[in-house]
Amino acid sequence: MYLGFDIGGTSVKYGIVDENFNIIEKSSFATNQHSDIAVLDDICNAVEYMKGKYSFDYIGIGAPGFVDSKKGYIEGSANTPFKHTAVVDYVEKKTGFKTYVANDANCAAYGEYIYGQTDTENFVMITIGTGVGGGIILNGKLFTGSTGLAGEIGHIVIRHEGLACPCGKRGCYEQYASATALVRLTKEKVKKSDGLMSSEMKNKIDSIDGRTVFDYIRKGATDAKEVLDKYAKYLVDGIESICSLLQPDAIILAGGITNDKELLMEYISKYYKGSTPVKIAKLKSDAGLIGAAFIGKSL
Amino acid sequence: MYLGFDIGGTSVKYGIVDENFNIIEKSSFATNQHSDIAVLDDICNAVEYMKGKYSFDYIGIGAPGFVDSKKGYIEGSANTPFKHTAVVDYVEKKTGFKTYVANDANCAAYGEYIYGQTDTENFVMITIGTGVGGGIILNGKLFTGSTGLAGEIGHIVIRHEGLACPCGKRGCYEQYASATALVRLTKEKVKKSDGLMSSEMKNKIDSIDGRTVFDYIRKGATDAKEVLDKYAKYLVDGIESICSLLQPDAIILAGGITNDKELLMEYISKYYKGSTPVKIAKLKSDAGLIGAAFIGKSL
Repeated sequence: MYLGFDIGGTSVKYGIVDENFNIIEKSSFATNQHSDIAVLDDICNAVEYMKGKYSFDYIGIGAPGFVDSKKGYIEGSANTPFKHTAVVDYVEKKTGFKTYVANDANCAAYGEYIYGQTDTENFVMITIGTGVGGGIILNGKLFTGSTGLAGEIGHIVIRHEGLACPCGKRGCYEQYASATALVRLTKEKVKKSDGLMSSEMKNKIDSIDGRTVFDYIRKGATDAKEVLDKYAKYLVDGIESICSLLQPDAIILAGGITNDKELLMEYISKYYKGSTPVKIAKLKSDAGLIGAAFIGKSL
Repeated sequence: MYLGFDIGGTSVKYGIVDENFNIIEKSSFATNQHSDIAVLDDICNAVEYMKGKYSFDYIGIGAPGFVDSKKGYIEGSANTPFKHTAVVDYVEKKTGFKTYVANDANCAAYGEYIYGQTDTENFVMITIGTGVGGGIILNGKLFTGSTGLAGEIGHIVIRHEGLACPCGKRGCYEQYASATALVRLTKEKVKKSDGLMSSEMKNKIDSIDGRTVFDYIRKGATDAKEVLDKYAKYLVDGIESICSLLQPDAIILAGGITNDKELLMEYISKYYKGSTPVKIAKLKSDAGLIGAAFIGKSL
């Protein structure tokens, strides 16, 4: 049995996962937005509860943002209260369990590897959500870089002197290829176009989400097609960059935006000319939790 | 003893390298521009000559462009006659020696690793020349990717829908960060500026090379400073992208443009905000030959 935690901006999911990657018991609690130690105390309480019911060897924690897996720190992220927090040290001392921590997108990539993608030991997963995250699996292990910060795919530069990114750089991939960016592109289009999607959505701009363009392309809306065209070109730039640098066996796309798999792949195929296969993740929202539970095997 | 070949567009350098990475004997011949087999025959003749004088176990060949190390093919490059050429098969059959082939920038990175950079086993080398090449050293080995095409740093995209690249994509790094690009930026500046460099070079534009801006910055020319500023920003975009993806222990810059190390690093430092150290290669033009000679140890 393995105990994994998947820390998010809103809630912390946790669960017991067995050797066959089945989630035996799963629960969650709200993420305390004000105190990193409060979140860790909540995690320790969950460990106490689980150890009364199951036998597990260690704890694996996935968290958004910059995580130094080697030193066991969550350095920080926009939506959680961690700031250079010594997570491993704190949880180990309080629970007595060996503890591992890794970036959540890294955990999801590892989850996809152990459960989903069994045909290759070398792939890069791009997780498209509020931002863009990622994980690199090389020779069946998570590649974490010098201090655990590898796989920050959202911060590769695809547009020289482009949009400012909170990271301090300009033109970062996540400013163009995240679900947030797709929503922005959709809203920009709706404001200035008279197409079918724009006409219908002009008075309810705030209800536009990552599914809007997909829904309207199915209705034949040209303005929606133009948005997905533009977005796909941005998305492909990052895929091409990763392939030029690493030539993995596959690129795996994950995140809510990949739910409309056929349509997304159709638009990617229009612009992607590389030879590395691009696939959609098999595991959905539990990839991060499953990967976190087993992350100690990889680090 | 090790026998290495470094195939270039103009000449093929080759040499015997000892266990301490000293070049014992070195020579070169012109690259036959018209026939890939003619180049291979010239290589085989050099092997015959060297085997009469030295004892070596295998042959290592570095070549520009796309090289499939795993299958032993040189797929092709702009300045050599190779086109899906089965180099390893041909040379092994003709000489009887086990033969390895790898991309020349990959060989240079491996040469830098074994001889130059002894303090880390994980770095990315960016070789700046006519184009931009590179090599990734992970855990002391050349990382070659799925079919040996990893490390094509010149083709990561840094400018969405930017300049067309012969590879078929737009906005590739080498269109902005190669020595060729620096020369282009310099010429563009000279044509439209009235600064010191521009005034003096306007009538001899064809004599502008990669050193021109460096020479004029030392003379205090503002127009030259502006060119290197612009170039350094491009260069940094690629460095940042590599660091976001891989977080190596170091980025190593190589190529003629790094000869004016202090000035180049001063300009890079103005824009580079990452934590991964950026260094200049210790080995100069022999890195490719030394790396090729030993490449069998890495592949």
